[in-house]
Amino acid sequence: MLSEFDLIKQYFTRAKGGRAVLGIGDDCALLAPAAGMQLAVSTDMLVEDRHFFAGADARKLGHKSLAVNLSDLAAMGARPLAFTLALSLPEANRDWLAGFSEGLFALADAHGCELVGGDTTRGPLNICITVFGEIEPGHALRRDAARAGDDIWISGTLGDARLALAGYRHELALDEDSLAQAARRMHTPVPRVALGRALAQARLAHAALDISDGLVGDLGHILAASRVGATLDLDALPAGAALARQDVALRRRFTAAGGDDYELCFTAAPSQREAIVAAGRATGTPVTRVGRIEAEPGLRMVDANGAPLDLRLAGWDHFAS
Amino acid sequence: MLSEFDLIKQYFTRAKGGRAVLGIGDDCALLAPAAGMQLAVSTDMLVEDRHFFAGADARKLGHKSLAVNLSDLAAMGARPLAFTLALSLPEANRDWLAGFSEGLFALADAHGCELVGGDTTRGPLNICITVFGEIEPGHALRRDAARAGDDIWISGTLGDARLALAGYRHELALDEDSLAQAARRMHTPVPRVALGRALAQARLAHAALDISDGLVGDLGHILAASRVGATLDLDALPAGAALARQDVALRRRFTAAGGDDYELCFTAAPSQREAIVAAGRATGTPVTRVGRIEAEPGLRMVDANGAPLDLRLAGWDHFAS
Repeated sequence: MLSEFDLIKQYFTRAKGGRAVLGIGDDCALLAPAAGMQLAVSTDMLVEDRHFFAGADARKLGHKSLAVNLSDLAAMGARPLAFTLALSLPEANRDWLAGFSEGLFALADAHGCELVGGDTTRGPLNICITVFGEIEPGHALRRDAARAGDDIWISGTLGDARLALAGYRHELALDEDSLAQAARRMHTPVPRVALGRALAQARLAHAALDISDGLVGDLGHILAASRVGATLDLDALPAGAALARQDVALRRRFTAAGGDDYELCFTAAPSQREAIVAAGRATGTPVTRVGRIEAEPGLRMVDANGAPLDLRLAGWDHFAS
Repeated sequence: MLSEFDLIKQYFTRAKGGRAVLGIGDDCALLAPAAGMQLAVSTDMLVEDRHFFAGADARKLGHKSLAVNLSDLAAMGARPLAFTLALSLPEANRDWLAGFSEGLFALADAHGCELVGGDTTRGPLNICITVFGEIEPGHALRRDAARAGDDIWISGTLGDARLALAGYRHELALDEDSLAQAARRMHTPVPRVALGRALAQARLAHAALDISDGLVGDLGHILAASRVGATLDLDALPAGAALARQDVALRRRFTAAGGDDYELCFTAAPSQREAIVAAGRATGTPVTRVGRIEAEPGLRMVDANGAPLDLRLAGWDHFAS
């Protein structure tokens, strides 16, 4: 008879064929980054009721668990290589395992990112993925690399994931189409791997990060690490399709501090504008200029006319009371 | 005011000085394995009530969380390089964070293993560490490399961690000294990194793994992967100091299938016996020969006289009902 342990293994065991020297099944996996390449590493833990609702769709959860990690590679400009998965489960449910592994591997395969190791245990639902990518030495898009005079860019659109949350929480009434549209952005974020690679490989951008806790809070990390300030044009922020139908106050709030966007925020010299627009086109990723890095510390927010706005926005703190 | 999030960060932020190109604080850490070396990767997740008791001493838990991961590197023969830590905590308690980080870093520093990234979130207590090590290509001690005729070796002693569990569960009455001695083995396992390195570097061993779920079950993984069988002399198994004072039936059971030992089990050609004993001496690690790999499939257990024993032992299955 199959133990539950064997059952779980079944769903995560696949035919060999990745780039790992040794994959699942030994004490360690063995990776050999291409000659001369550095290894980028990131880890994210997703917890029920914190990062997703109890009873969340398993397939989407599989997608999102890996997507948020690939987004970290994208923000560094690294090419995905492999990942490990540690999973704590209250029970070994076939339907859940089938859905989760399907969503996970669909995204992994799309990025040539091989599952090379893992751990499963019984406990409260918890998903911890560590992802590995390759990057040319000196090409990584670091948070401390923004320079005064840089443009600030955003990939894709912002705020729809936050709009979906507002809908689920009944903070506002959304029509069915808007909620469905916004919910897709919340549950199945698209990691901007191709754009991140293009920016890093050709050294088009200076600093970058992925927006997970809200643009204002996350941009603050770049400003602090780079010891610079910025002016952000809140009305230039590209709103998600569902959010775009809401009023301007909500648009500003949710694009600037929504969270769960997994878009890239990056800075680049104005001389790179054409190249960046071309990279966006080549990788099928919308890119929008939304502000400017300045020597003066602090973050100044303005409207379309350049008039100051004070939204008292802060990034989303997982431990904020 | 410090948010809880900042508070946690404090305990895990340290002066720069490791071998990572880029450590904590960006979207990814950057690692550069030494030229020509492969990267060994392993991940382990520790859950309250499953891998440790609720209210477990934080310092010991910090030690053990990293120790079980370093033990996987040891079993591969890899040199520790760096690790990531993902932590889900019900609350940010200063005493707990101070103790946990102290235990964690004491062991990390002893092995020159740098914390390069992580994630913290609120949720049920869950500790997920992913560890990275370097290994010469072709030198890794893989589970599928055992050969008929190999000796089977064990590092250190077995069974004391299981004895402590029996004491805690009141399965048997232990005197205070025995319980304290056994408990040390359970709470602060010593990863056999130096021995693993010595075996791999000089290619003294063929197959290896670390014993986490009990010798019989874990040795089974080597036999299955290598398509061989074995005879194991249960009376040759080195018992922990506390277990050695128990009767022979309990000694056999707990050394053969105890679990939580984190000793190495490895196989090597008989021609390497002297070199292995010398490697054990050079690294301060006791090594004991306990059996033989054979072409005939299956695991045969015998007593000191070579008479067959049938203990119906099985490895510890985290999902066994």
